[in-house]
Amino acid sequence: MRKLSLFIATSLDGYIAKPDDDLSFLKPVEKEGEDYGYAAFMDTIDTIILGRKTYDYVVREIGASHYDNGERKVYVITRTARPDTGNTTFYTGDPAGLVHRLKSENGKNIFCDGGAEIIHELLKHDLIDEFIISIVPVLVGNGTRLFKDGRPEQSLELVKVEAFDTGLVQMVYRKNVRDA
Amino acid sequence: MRKLSLFIATSLDGYIAKPDDDLSFLKPVEKEGEDYGYAAFMDTIDTIILGRKTYDYVVREIGASHYDNGERKVYVITRTARPDTGNTTFYTGDPAGLVHRLKSENGKNIFCDGGAEIIHELLKHDLIDEFIISIVPVLVGNGTRLFKDGRPEQSLELVKVEAFDTGLVQMVYRKNVRDA
Repeated sequence: MRKLSLFIATSLDGYIAKPDDDLSFLKPVEKEGEDYGYAAFMDTIDTIILGRKTYDYVVREIGASHYDNGERKVYVITRTARPDTGNTTFYTGDPAGLVHRLKSENGKNIFCDGGAEIIHELLKHDLIDEFIISIVPVLVGNGTRLFKDGRPEQSLELVKVEAFDTGLVQMVYRKNVRDA
Repeated sequence: MRKLSLFIATSLDGYIAKPDDDLSFLKPVEKEGEDYGYAAFMDTIDTIILGRKTYDYVVREIGASHYDNGERKVYVITRTARPDTGNTTFYTGDPAGLVHRLKSENGKNIFCDGGAEIIHELLKHDLIDEFIISIVPVLVGNGTRLFKDGRPEQSLELVKVEAFDTGLVQMVYRKNVRDA
C-alpha cells in the first residue's frame, strides 16, 4: 500500500516555525548542494496533501508553481472551497477520509507537507506511516509546535539516523508494525 | 568552569512524562546492561539540582537514598522551606543565583535532574551548557513537555549522536560558543 510520509524540520525544542511564520532558524543549516535527501524523497512521491495556511504561505513566499507544476497531484485541506487550479484540488471534506481513499488507490507515496494542524488531524487517526524528521541545532523558545497536545499514543520503529556537518540530525521512523 | 548538564529522556513528540507522572513510555527502551551512558555521565558529576516535585516523585518511587547517599551535594529547588537532610539542601532562593554561585566554585560538573519547571527557569537564564537528550521511539500524545513555551532563542552545537538497538537516539549538544 502507498505510504503517507512526513518530511519536516524542527528545532530541538520541537517548533516548526517561530511566531509569525518566522523560519529564520533554518538558515544556519542551509548549505549549497545539501538538500538533506529532499529531492530523493520527492522522487518517491506523486501526491501531496497540506493545510490551507501552509499552502498560502508557500504560494506567497515561493509562488504557486512550487505545487502547481504538473508533476504531482496536490490536495489542499481547507474549510473554504476554492476552484481547483491545474493539478491542485482544494478539499473541504474530512482529511482522514481523503487519506484512506488515496491510500487505497495505486501510485507512488503521499507526502504531507504540513502544517501542524493537518499533521495533528492525521496523527489523531494514526494515518502517518513514516516520519522523516530533521532536528536543527537550536532552541527557538516559542512558536508553532510540530506535535500538538492531545493525540493517541503511537509507538514507532527507528529506521535510520544521520548527522550532518551543519549539526542537523535526521531521524527516520516508521509506524510500529507490532501495533497493527 | 564547571558545566551544567541535562541528561534526560523524551518521547519523539517532546514529553518527559505522560499525564499523572506516567513514565511507562520508557519501558520499551529499558534493557539489561544498557544504561545509555548514565553511570559514566554521573561519574563527572558532584552536584545535582532538581525541582521539588521531581525530588518528591523520586523519593516516593525509588527512595530518599537515590539522592541522599553521601556521594553528591543535592539542591532541591522549592518554594517551601524544609530542613536539610544529609547532603540534601532545600533551596528557596533564586535558582539562577544558585547556579551562578555553584559554577563559580571548584568541583566536578553539575547535573540538572529536572523537572520541566526548573529546566525552563534555567533556560530562561541561558544557564544550561550541555544537553544530553535521549529520544524514545514513541509519540505519547500528551503530558509534561521537556521544553515549555516562552524562552529566549539559543543556538546549539551538535557534539554527538548515537543510535541504540532499542531505537533510542541519544544526541549531545553544547551551548554554541559563537553566541558567547
